[in-house]
Amino acid sequence: MKLPERVTIIGLGLMGGSLALALQGSGVRVTGVDLDEGTRTAALATGSVVQVTGVWEEGVAEADLIVLATPVQHILKMVVALSGFKKGGVVIDLGSTKGVIVAAMGGMGAEWEAVGGHPMCGREIAGWTGATADLYEGATFALCRTERTTPKAAEWAEGLVEVVGAERLWLTAERHDFLTGMSSHVPYVAAAALMRAAVGVGDDGVWGMSASGFRDTSRVSGTSPAVMSDILWTNRKAVLAHLAAYEAELGVLRAALAEGDEAGVRAWAEGAAAGYARYRQAVGRPLP
Amino acid sequence: MKLPERVTIIGLGLMGGSLALALQGSGVRVTGVDLDEGTRTAALATGSVVQVTGVWEEGVAEADLIVLATPVQHILKMVVALSGFKKGGVVIDLGSTKGVIVAAMGGMGAEWEAVGGHPMCGREIAGWTGATADLYEGATFALCRTERTTPKAAEWAEGLVEVVGAERLWLTAERHDFLTGMSSHVPYVAAAALMRAAVGVGDDGVWGMSASGFRDTSRVSGTSPAVMSDILWTNRKAVLAHLAAYEAELGVLRAALAEGDEAGVRAWAEGAAAGYARYRQAVGRPLP
Repeated sequence: MKLPERVTIIGLGLMGGSLALALQGSGVRVTGVDLDEGTRTAALATGSVVQVTGVWEEGVAEADLIVLATPVQHILKMVVALSGFKKGGVVIDLGSTKGVIVAAMGGMGAEWEAVGGHPMCGREIAGWTGATADLYEGATFALCRTERTTPKAAEWAEGLVEVVGAERLWLTAERHDFLTGMSSHVPYVAAAALMRAAVGVGDDGVWGMSASGFRDTSRVSGTSPAVMSDILWTNRKAVLAHLAAYEAELGVLRAALAEGDEAGVRAWAEGAAAGYARYRQAVGRPLP
Repeated sequence: MKLPERVTIIGLGLMGGSLALALQGSGVRVTGVDLDEGTRTAALATGSVVQVTGVWEEGVAEADLIVLATPVQHILKMVVALSGFKKGGVVIDLGSTKGVIVAAMGGMGAEWEAVGGHPMCGREIAGWTGATADLYEGATFALCRTERTTPKAAEWAEGLVEVVGAERLWLTAERHDFLTGMSSHVPYVAAAALMRAAVGVGDDGVWGMSASGFRDTSRVSGTSPAVMSDILWTNRKAVLAHLAAYEAELGVLRAALAEGDEAGVRAWAEGAAAGYARYRQAVGRPLP
């Protein structure tokens, strides 16, 4: 496993902070960049970063590998800013949509080496507060080649994935965005709409009558709105297509209920349960 | 705490089976009724039931308290069948909708005593296979008065709730059905539509790219279709009203994405996160 000596993580939030904590003990020297002073102090206190700064230009000066761990649209800005500031380097990002980022990385100067990354893990608690050393363990870590992906950049990206206990999956940015639109972005939309509708009832009895079903189905509605709105926005083509399919499924049930088609309601529920069994089988947790 | 001596549970599935397991050691003698021979054998082997039968008429003959733990529409049939078979007794049910059941119980002969019950807990694994002794622990257990609710029936119902470690909540059937329509039934619909839409993509890459967000948001889609379609059907008025609100929330996001309203996408996500914080506060698990 090949690893860079000096890694600078820009953004010590849930993803970047967890990466710093996961790299502790790996021998990699981590510099943390974050605008929030409290976050910088807290990160330094853990020993997971050897130095911190609020000024990214300072943070990246000596870096072998730069990790962009901010919301997607900030990553896009940083890709451009890095190109203009520094005479080359190696960069990877942790953003949840890949098409726009991979395209931007492809536009960096030829002295840059870059890989698109997306660790498929997360938490409903945003920022450094939510960061944990084991967030990446066992997670799929998607990697996307860019026009600036060199063998060295690919090896370092793979090393990073391995050292934090994740499993690498190389795929194109287009396929990544299409699949995560359904596996990750629409689930967020489903959960967030549920939370918004529950609030809309205007009766705190809803919370009192909630149990594990509501808890789990709504959990990801708490994900950082800055992060999520960037994701939905930068992957809106795939999200809109999958959302239309999702709304069509709701429409099938609504019609069955409204039109008195009891057998239709049953068939709809049976389809969902069959899908769930198939999913559990596919992810290696078959139903008992 | 007052408890009956002999309890007969009709249906040793997830809810009834878990109740039998939870009553073990309480001193209550439990008779189990189930049509499935494998379930009867397995239940008897745990010692949680002292006898089993596939014939409900045999099972209820000596019961002090009869617990109806089958899908809602079967409970409705049993309420009528019990009335015609036996010269009175005490009955409680564990069905997830209460309006239709409480009304049916009110129509039982005057020699009957009846309480509507709904333990607010569940699992995505149906049947005796999913039953666990701790399913009820800490769960809210809704209780609804019927025209046949006597002090004795109410005390036994409360005793049952207490002995399995749940917390009782008396409320009207109407309020129960309205609130659970949003706190439980629409979450199922949201999860089930997600699973159906994910299957509809027709690409197993969706499972490979799924992580904890998909896992949790879709979990309840695996709930027994027999149970869930009965619930949706018997609470269709409330479900349709809440579902319309849910679809309207999806429509707000869809419009913002389709019309290029980036600030609208952000505001939508912020509303969801604010709702999540409020929910966590309300259920005593405030965000850090």
